[in-house]
Amino acid sequence: MGIKAISQAVISRLPRYYRYLGQLRDEGIERISSRELSERMNVTASQIRQDLNNFGGFGHQGYGYNVDSLYIEIGKILGLTTKHNLILVGAGNLGRAIAGYAKFEKRGFIMRGIFDIDESLNGQDVRGIPIMPLDRIEQFILENDIDIAVICIPATASMAVVDRIVKCGIKAIWNFSHVDLDVPRDVIVENVHLSDSLMRLSYLMKQ
Amino acid sequence: MGIKAISQAVISRLPRYYRYLGQLRDEGIERISSRELSERMNVTASQIRQDLNNFGGFGHQGYGYNVDSLYIEIGKILGLTTKHNLILVGAGNLGRAIAGYAKFEKRGFIMRGIFDIDESLNGQDVRGIPIMPLDRIEQFILENDIDIAVICIPATASMAVVDRIVKCGIKAIWNFSHVDLDVPRDVIVENVHLSDSLMRLSYLMKQ
Repeated sequence: MGIKAISQAVISRLPRYYRYLGQLRDEGIERISSRELSERMNVTASQIRQDLNNFGGFGHQGYGYNVDSLYIEIGKILGLTTKHNLILVGAGNLGRAIAGYAKFEKRGFIMRGIFDIDESLNGQDVRGIPIMPLDRIEQFILENDIDIAVICIPATASMAVVDRIVKCGIKAIWNFSHVDLDVPRDVIVENVHLSDSLMRLSYLMKQ
Repeated sequence: MGIKAISQAVISRLPRYYRYLGQLRDEGIERISSRELSERMNVTASQIRQDLNNFGGFGHQGYGYNVDSLYIEIGKILGLTTKHNLILVGAGNLGRAIAGYAKFEKRGFIMRGIFDIDESLNGQDVRGIPIMPLDRIEQFILENDIDIAVICIPATASMAVVDRIVKCGIKAIWNFSHVDLDVPRDVIVENVHLSDSLMRLSYLMKQ
């Protein structure tokens, strides 16, 4: 079936659909109506029908959605059927939390190595993933087919590291540094700016 | 000056303006033109002028913006001049990373206590912030004027804790659990769903 011209707004909602469908699957639910899904997700049934119509053929009058098919199809659209090899830069608490989160692996994101400027961490590991000195990062990227780098270091240090890894061919960065990275146009950056998020919360509390 | 009818889109950009203005301030820059700010932030100068016009009176023809005034004004709009008392639930790596981040305090977010179901952590601390058993959370909220709770526990455990703390009057939740919380309408939830973010990155890599 044709997957074309899906709007940014729909795309931004896909991970949430995927999460809910995964829960339904874990509960052993095989099919669900747009009305039931709408109650769970707290969006309108018509929004759900519109969104999911983009992927064609899964909703059937009087039957609803086949949970498994829809879960698999959305997973494909999200690129979760492709395996990705990741490295993480910065073995502080946040870095260790992310490296320690085994669930990402079920979705095809495999953490291969952790790098830190603190050489005393050399030889340690998180969940079996080795912590290595930063000066080995280029070689490791090239030898291990790494395509995503997770950046968990202070803002002042992040651009220098990002320049280095982009030169080695990294095309996707999951950025937790509190700075907007300046990268070539063909490099994708997904930011998690925690202080921006906390400020949004603060703003909403004032209203 | 009147602050009224500011669109959601502008609001969502405010933390980023605040971050950049803070950097300029740290660099000792007193004023900046919309053109210079636009180059730094990688948005158009006309977007900046439109956005900042919402707050009135800070841009002057041929002068630009007074960095300090604008920083302070946006801080007020974001509610950063109000002090907030926070607790954190879940002293795992992610929780410790957030509790350990002293910069939030400069913006008025004061972490008062950390709670964990693992009683063996009782008596430990993160940066001087005590880790306490979960069964003391209600009393602590009431005695310490807590208004924000940060939730860093597994999705399966989070709703039960959130129900308890909402009953004690918590009106704002910064949620890191991988689940959408079901709360009364007057409770604000700001979600940081890390796996949704990673899936967006994965989707963008496919394009």
